[in-house]
Amino acid sequence: MANPVLPSSGVLSPLGLDAVRLSPGFWGDRVALNREVTIAHCQEWEEREGWIGNFRGERPRRGREFSDSEIYKLLEAMAWADHPGLPALAETVAQAQEGDGYLNTRWSGSRYTDFEWGHELYCYGHLIQAGVARLRMHGEDRLTQVAVRAADHVCRRFMDGTQTCGHPVIEMALVELYRATGTERYLEMARRFVERRGLPALADIPFGRAYYQDDVPIRQAQVFRGHVVRALYLASGVVDVAVETGDQELLKAVESQWERTVARRTHLTGGMGSRHADESYGEDYELPPDQAYNETCASIASVMLAHRLLLATGDVRYADLAERTLYNMLATGVALDGCSFFYANPLRVRVPAVPLEGVNHAAEGGLRSPWFDVSCCPNNIARTLASLPAYVATASADGIRIHQHTPSEIRHGGLAVRVETGYPWAGSVTVRVLADGEGRIGLRVPAWATDATLARVPAAASDSAVAGTSVRGRASALDAALEAPTGPTPVRPGYAHADGPWRAGDELRLELPMAPRWTFPDRRIDALRGSAAVERGPLVYCAESVADEPPLGDLTARVRPPVEHEVDDVVELEVEAELGSGDGGWPYASQPDERPSGTDVRLRLVPYHRWGNRGPATMRVWLPI
Amino acid sequence: MANPVLPSSGVLSPLGLDAVRLSPGFWGDRVALNREVTIAHCQEWEEREGWIGNFRGERPRRGREFSDSEIYKLLEAMAWADHPGLPALAETVAQAQEGDGYLNTRWSGSRYTDFEWGHELYCYGHLIQAGVARLRMHGEDRLTQVAVRAADHVCRRFMDGTQTCGHPVIEMALVELYRATGTERYLEMARRFVERRGLPALADIPFGRAYYQDDVPIRQAQVFRGHVVRALYLASGVVDVAVETGDQELLKAVESQWERTVARRTHLTGGMGSRHADESYGEDYELPPDQAYNETCASIASVMLAHRLLLATGDVRYADLAERTLYNMLATGVALDGCSFFYANPLRVRVPAVPLEGVNHAAEGGLRSPWFDVSCCPNNIARTLASLPAYVATASADGIRIHQHTPSEIRHGGLAVRVETGYPWAGSVTVRVLADGEGRIGLRVPAWATDATLARVPAAASDSAVAGTSVRGRASALDAALEAPTGPTPVRPGYAHADGPWRAGDELRLELPMAPRWTFPDRRIDALRGSAAVERGPLVYCAESVADEPPLGDLTARVRPPVEHEVDDVVELEVEAELGSGDGGWPYASQPDERPSGTDVRLRLVPYHRWGNRGPATMRVWLPI
Repeated sequence: MANPVLPSSGVLSPLGLDAVRLSPGFWGDRVALNREVTIAHCQEWEEREGWIGNFRGERPRRGREFSDSEIYKLLEAMAWADHPGLPALAETVAQAQEGDGYLNTRWSGSRYTDFEWGHELYCYGHLIQAGVARLRMHGEDRLTQVAVRAADHVCRRFMDGTQTCGHPVIEMALVELYRATGTERYLEMARRFVERRGLPALADIPFGRAYYQDDVPIRQAQVFRGHVVRALYLASGVVDVAVETGDQELLKAVESQWERTVARRTHLTGGMGSRHADESYGEDYELPPDQAYNETCASIASVMLAHRLLLATGDVRYADLAERTLYNMLATGVALDGCSFFYANPLRVRVPAVPLEGVNHAAEGGLRSPWFDVSCCPNNIARTLASLPAYVATASADGIRIHQHTPSEIRHGGLAVRVETGYPWAGSVTVRVLADGEGRIGLRVPAWATDATLARVPAAASDSAVAGTSVRGRASALDAALEAPTGPTPVRPGYAHADGPWRAGDELRLELPMAPRWTFPDRRIDALRGSAAVERGPLVYCAESVADEPPLGDLTARVRPPVEHEVDDVVELEVEAELGSGDGGWPYASQPDERPSGTDVRLRLVPYHRWGNRGPATMRVWLPI
Repeated sequence: MANPVLPSSGVLSPLGLDAVRLSPGFWGDRVALNREVTIAHCQEWEEREGWIGNFRGERPRRGREFSDSEIYKLLEAMAWADHPGLPALAETVAQAQEGDGYLNTRWSGSRYTDFEWGHELYCYGHLIQAGVARLRMHGEDRLTQVAVRAADHVCRRFMDGTQTCGHPVIEMALVELYRATGTERYLEMARRFVERRGLPALADIPFGRAYYQDDVPIRQAQVFRGHVVRALYLASGVVDVAVETGDQELLKAVESQWERTVARRTHLTGGMGSRHADESYGEDYELPPDQAYNETCASIASVMLAHRLLLATGDVRYADLAERTLYNMLATGVALDGCSFFYANPLRVRVPAVPLEGVNHAAEGGLRSPWFDVSCCPNNIARTLASLPAYVATASADGIRIHQHTPSEIRHGGLAVRVETGYPWAGSVTVRVLADGEGRIGLRVPAWATDATLARVPAAASDSAVAGTSVRGRASALDAALEAPTGPTPVRPGYAHADGPWRAGDELRLELPMAPRWTFPDRRIDALRGSAAVERGPLVYCAESVADEPPLGDLTARVRPPVEHEVDDVVELEVEAELGSGDGGWPYASQPDERPSGTDVRLRLVPYHRWGNRGPATMRVWLPI
């Protein structure tokens, strides 16, 4: 089962790369580009920066203390992509492993002297995830042996005691290795790492222990907090431990933390992280568009967590957030050429970034860069896109559920289907049955799709117009069943489904409403008061200003239906706005600022994930109204 | 002349500690508390933390690489305060000076190996400022000799070449030493440091060269940017160099940068600095109340710069900003006990801080702390309060100008006056002439005081009601002259003045309007859209919630006249507001958030500088309306 996450129980079971194949389309194209371009790009930069050379013992050692982990993330990407370069790179890594399984190019002479910042267990975590990927895609080999020896070393060294790592990831890695091998000590080690957190296990630091979720035990926490990637990697590992140990209390704790975090600490794009200084969430409703950090890696971690919670509970909210995050964060994180990346993803950029060559030493969000001093994001994108098919659909007790609508073929049990769609540009999703079969087919209806319909078209009719005869479907949040041929039937957000038997050529046709819509913030979000954003389908839109396009600094938009334009296969939008003149002295006055705005303009909006592809630009998602 | 700044030319001349004495009152009380409590507090902590021991050669060396500078700031405070502890502490410092004048406890074995972060010239700058203070208050002694030897070392080492320091302050220190000694090489050295900046002189860093104002030459910059304290210390030194070299172009450059900075990068409190990560300004109109950094030291630097620009130009805007910054930032930075301090000064605190004992490792703004890892703010407050009388009044060609209205006695040339006032609580300011004399007396009318009046009351009448006979005053921004007895005459913001001759007992009575006023932000400040603040006189007010007081997270205020209450000699205000219920899920919706607010409350507002004195609290200056 070629899956990054394979729980032994749960409401839904994952379908992996062996069950889901992506066809050309929004995600299929990106997955192909990743395999053909991004993986090689990452390897080239890791060689150039000396991070691979560190494993060959080249001196002086180069890169940050956690740079080993970048090679491991890349190895995981290579494993999912069946990349021919894997064995050689794995061999380089293997050479550096010590006799007892210890492996770290930075701390080899001074093992485990800095749990707060040393990242040794963090690096093992990524190594083990790469090993699991290889094991599931290929079977045992040099890389899987290295990973197992490292895991065994970790269990020997840390099974007793109170220590853990300042940066989580070892937890979910060990659970997955347990799932892949059946070796129970890996699960027990993960469980102990989880339970040690917050006792506390780590030293206090200027950012406070909340930075690495060591402020309170996981079961007592109310919300995700501190460094976002750390928080979400940890929560993912906690879900894994909870599922494998049957610990419902622990699972509920994470669900409730997720719920509060999504309600109060999540940007419209699904991005998380409002503070640059410590890459942290910030407080409830602290959601500044300009200072939004929204690290690309944090969005990947958020998708990893949402996927785990979806599998455990079957709750559509997790798939909804995953979609929002995939289209507006993951797709934004990498340029259309597959070779440059965003680290931070603000929702407002006031000053165009200055283009630079080579490594970007900052983690700002104005222009995508080929590489960073801390280059987690490119490698994280690579491994996520390489395993993306695993996030598209799942198996349920009686069939399949399709969570992400993208051109693909899905085969499971008695079912084989092809998904055809122009989504996210078009709202029609056709599921065509490829062979006679049995089972229920579920289709996610996103929360924003309040006017969706589903039609069932039998094989004979499926080439002509929909011609249903008897409608028996019920429209409800989780139970919109259509068991016989039907015309378009309203379905509510949640999962709409239809039951077999199926004949080859049968079709399900989901129609999602794609009219652009204005979205308004909760009034407790100070930073967004008096503004609104435009969404269409799963996409968040933004105004972007390049070169001599209208400046965005002093604009007031009119809340009227946006106009659609198709430009190079992308749906762009246009809204009406007024532009102000923009001078002034002391910016606080005894009267509200209602100076007349000078100029009427039509403001072009592009999908947020497309911004920054036309050179240095200013950008804003939230428009004053 | 006991003054921190003594330019050889300028529209106004400073009046120092020998000319201005503060009486009990808002500032007089704080200056006394500083002398009696804060200075000893700082010295005690610097001993405890080992920063003074570093000068005795105690090992291991303790504190950050720039900790020497804290002892120098304290020495400067001691010098202005004529503190008896100075000679002993100066002797400790002197013992560490090397034969060629070099003095640094951190870099002694590896001099000048890190100009970006080493802070060696920065430390000299503070040492030299302490030396100048001592020279002017006391005359030559061990401390002044150490400072001169250090300055001579700097001139020998750096007169040629392209180097400068990552943290400015040496520039203004050298100019002041030139002013105090007449030794021209100090001015030339300062001029060269100024001109080197932006060529560039320093390495690029992840924050970018703008962090230390090395991105463009000073003459070409449009606005203050980067690390705020660095930017304002540098600008202060640039004004000093410009004034002493007669370089009008250079002076104009700083004036125009100041103007844009005040219009676009300054918080209502006068605080500057919107980003925590690099303690920097942020972009134009990036003024978030919650993430406002507004370092206490930055406000001190802002007052230092405003004072220099005021002396050079006589423009009241500089004194206005100094007043705003003194009352809302400097007074906020230190607790009423003189022993705990704010480092950052946000305008919104969502979550009450957790009280802690001892050193605060973070630089947050929720509770005042006795000490910090980087403890610039306490020492900077100490030296500023110790020299505060120098910021109160100046001499002009024909008399005196009073810029800051606080109980005091001012003597200059033919004039001796006593200022009596309950300001900032009351709006009446009485200037009583103490002896027969000549000259013009000017009084600043703040920009917000649009309904002020000035009356001249001759000696005979001054004990009874105002009984002017002939009014000859003109009310104008800079020229409201009252030469003969008058009743209250309207005066406009700017300087109102009256000319002698004066008889002992004559009075000038300035009445400033003290009604609370609502203030609204420029619409380009996204973070403040849809909200308003309350000011009264020079004070910014805020809502503070301690323990079971109404929570501030979901409130809507009504813009109606606030009600005044006098509580323990402090004027508090009360406004009407509605409190919302505060639950909810995904915080973005298809309709504006206009859920009815549940509860009507009367919201108590306290002066911003008083907040945080009642224990952990939430706070907000800007109220949604």
